[in-house]
Amino acid sequence: MQSRPNISNAIIRRLPRYRRCLGHLQKNGVKKVSSRELSNIIGYTASQIRQDFNTFGEFGQQGYGYSVENLYREINKILGLNREYRTVVVGVGNLGQAITNYTYYYKIGFNIMGLFDANPRIIGNVINDVKIRDVAELESYVKDHDIDIGVICVNRENAQKVADDLVAGGVEGIWNFAPIDLDVPADVALESVHLSDSLHALSFMIKSNELENEAKDK
Amino acid sequence: MQSRPNISNAIIRRLPRYRRCLGHLQKNGVKKVSSRELSNIIGYTASQIRQDFNTFGEFGQQGYGYSVENLYREINKILGLNREYRTVVVGVGNLGQAITNYTYYYKIGFNIMGLFDANPRIIGNVINDVKIRDVAELESYVKDHDIDIGVICVNRENAQKVADDLVAGGVEGIWNFAPIDLDVPADVALESVHLSDSLHALSFMIKSNELENEAKDK
Repeated sequence: MQSRPNISNAIIRRLPRYRRCLGHLQKNGVKKVSSRELSNIIGYTASQIRQDFNTFGEFGQQGYGYSVENLYREINKILGLNREYRTVVVGVGNLGQAITNYTYYYKIGFNIMGLFDANPRIIGNVINDVKIRDVAELESYVKDHDIDIGVICVNRENAQKVADDLVAGGVEGIWNFAPIDLDVPADVALESVHLSDSLHALSFMIKSNELENEAKDK
Repeated sequence: MQSRPNISNAIIRRLPRYRRCLGHLQKNGVKKVSSRELSNIIGYTASQIRQDFNTFGEFGQQGYGYSVENLYREINKILGLNREYRTVVVGVGNLGQAITNYTYYYKIGFNIMGLFDANPRIIGNVINDVKIRDVAELESYVKDHDIDIGVICVNRENAQKVADDLVAGGVEGIWNFAPIDLDVPADVALESVHLSDSLHALSFMIKSNELENEAKDK
């Protein structure tokens, strides 16, 4: 597999969920799983699951189910998790620290090499053995240290400038937590975490439950 | 509209994006928008967009486009954003503080009434006028103060116990940041933020770009 034509945004969202589910199964000692069993756990249809796996190659024999171990390993490869990513975090407020601790403690292959902030009171501080540097040095640091990913945890107003510096420094991807749609070149991967979308999905579910209860009471 | 039959998980994910997009258009003074224009901005097909809006009622006349203001207001209602939510945050580490500040500064209708932690060194501290209480008081506080939503920012090991206390206290919804699949009754809305899924979507996009570049170089 050398190129990936027409990978939809939807499948990008499904693959990490497959991985998570297979990881649980593996931890629980499960060896084989069918698309139907996966469907029961994860909620996508069995045919959707088979189609997704077929997109990336042959992972199992019809009727025999998939080897959990093989499938987990292959999906890790597909997701690009069979390597390490040299990462910097920009903005070391509460969110930046939370992200830093998360990647540090769970040892998930995203190694925080540098931390950056504009606040002179915290520049020079050390978190998990990494020193906080002045954000003015960001672009040259990214260039000199061959950084793969920049995590943006600054506020909305400064996020685009930080993204520009990361791109100029040569990152391959940006993980953005600022509530703004960033403008980056097409060859730089951009993943934005919109916390408000998640919160609004929650309020929608609450409202749906309420409407259902009202309907029942009638 | 009294009940919402067969609302798929996919549409729950699309609605907050429509809202965000319409909010931007409204801020930029745009009055009318067609499904085709929305499609260009947001990336779903025009027919998908029309179908989603039809699910919830009649928002526009074919050929005339939608009123941005009306559509934004209606989607807010559909998402349950035309009311306020009495919210507590459990676990006031970096992530809990980040979430608390986020909801406080952006004034998005999720009012933090209570903060809870197990660490005696921070119990009694005050953040944005709200006192941090002992997590042992969580269930009774939720009951006595008619709390709608609990936000879980504790670690994986303690998350289910916190969820049980929130449910026993009578919350309508849980916003979970702990990396674990929680078990809650069907009538309690559960939205889990899986940061690892987002990070893996990013590494997948990076890998896809690399494969595309390799293919071009051949």
